[in-house]
Amino acid sequence: MARWEPHTKERLARAALELYSEYGYERTTVAQIAARAGLTERTYFRHFRDKREVLFDGAHSLETTLSEAVAAAPGGASPRAALAAGLDAIGLAFQGAREQARTRQAVISAQQELQERELIKLASLTRVLAEALRLRGVEETRASLLAEAGCGVFKTAFVRWVGDERPRGGASAGEVALAALLREGLDTLGDALARD
Amino acid sequence: MARWEPHTKERLARAALELYSEYGYERTTVAQIAARAGLTERTYFRHFRDKREVLFDGAHSLETTLSEAVAAAPGGASPRAALAAGLDAIGLAFQGAREQARTRQAVISAQQELQERELIKLASLTRVLAEALRLRGVEETRASLLAEAGCGVFKTAFVRWVGDERPRGGASAGEVALAALLREGLDTLGDALARD
Repeated sequence: MARWEPHTKERLARAALELYSEYGYERTTVAQIAARAGLTERTYFRHFRDKREVLFDGAHSLETTLSEAVAAAPGGASPRAALAAGLDAIGLAFQGAREQARTRQAVISAQQELQERELIKLASLTRVLAEALRLRGVEETRASLLAEAGCGVFKTAFVRWVGDERPRGGASAGEVALAALLREGLDTLGDALARD
Repeated sequence: MARWEPHTKERLARAALELYSEYGYERTTVAQIAARAGLTERTYFRHFRDKREVLFDGAHSLETTLSEAVAAAPGGASPRAALAAGLDAIGLAFQGAREQARTRQAVISAQQELQERELIKLASLTRVLAEALRLRGVEETRASLLAEAGCGVFKTAFVRWVGDERPRGGASAGEVALAALLREGLDTLGDALARD
């Protein structure tokens, strides 16, 4: 086997998620994660700082996806349309990854320290979204409000998506798309906030 | 002097805030807080578990204020109107306390651990708000979306309120009301989320 291993990081992440799910986050060691992935602890620490990092490694790329999509919305798009474009991109980024997201969510829900880390990452995502809207010329307060609401739509849609238990025909047949729940959430919130 | 001290808790909280603001949160000790308030450490620990608790002691009463106001909105009120009633009550609860809120905010902004605790408290406030809306019969997803957006309005308005630097005539003359910023935020968000 070649010394260079393809998908090393993904294998480590998958192994970690499996072990956290099977034995609990607290009881799993980095040595076990490396062994399950057929790699060494040293290799693990080349990719992740600690046991926790492996669960939040996707946060930065999600921020980039979101801000790039908001920036790429047509120049004449309304702030709401730019936000919707950002949410669409998030939906696309998670496509086909529901089982993984569900396992990760179960691990995080079982551990207060991880829930707190998740809140911090979401606050960072909100700041990135507000900044992306501001860069489009959206006034500061309006950008903050839309970013907070947009991240609320994401959180709510995500919980529905990973919790969706409808029977599935095949590998991912019948799986409700996160993108659809995000769009529906944005519409529902807009309607609910319309002045009486 | 009588053994029973009126406003003991308030005196301790004020002393803590002063010291955190003057010397920094990290460098202040409970002994110093008690001394500044003219009380003993033992008295401090009868009211607060630790140094941090004194900064977040109001969170529970804010949750109660919010959920009671949402519950007390007229039976025929829309979910948006019930949310607005909750925000009004929050605005009222902070009335006249801007300098204190500003000092507290500066202390929290200087310390990552405190910022994280603030996020946890806000997540709890969001859950309480969602539950209060559900108890009014608001459908679950809609209640979650409105609660996330409502807390986003609160965060955004609060930042504007404590950051407002307009010149002031007297003790609180000319002070923009948090309640007004909350109402304005709700309207701005509703308008920005209206379908194109």
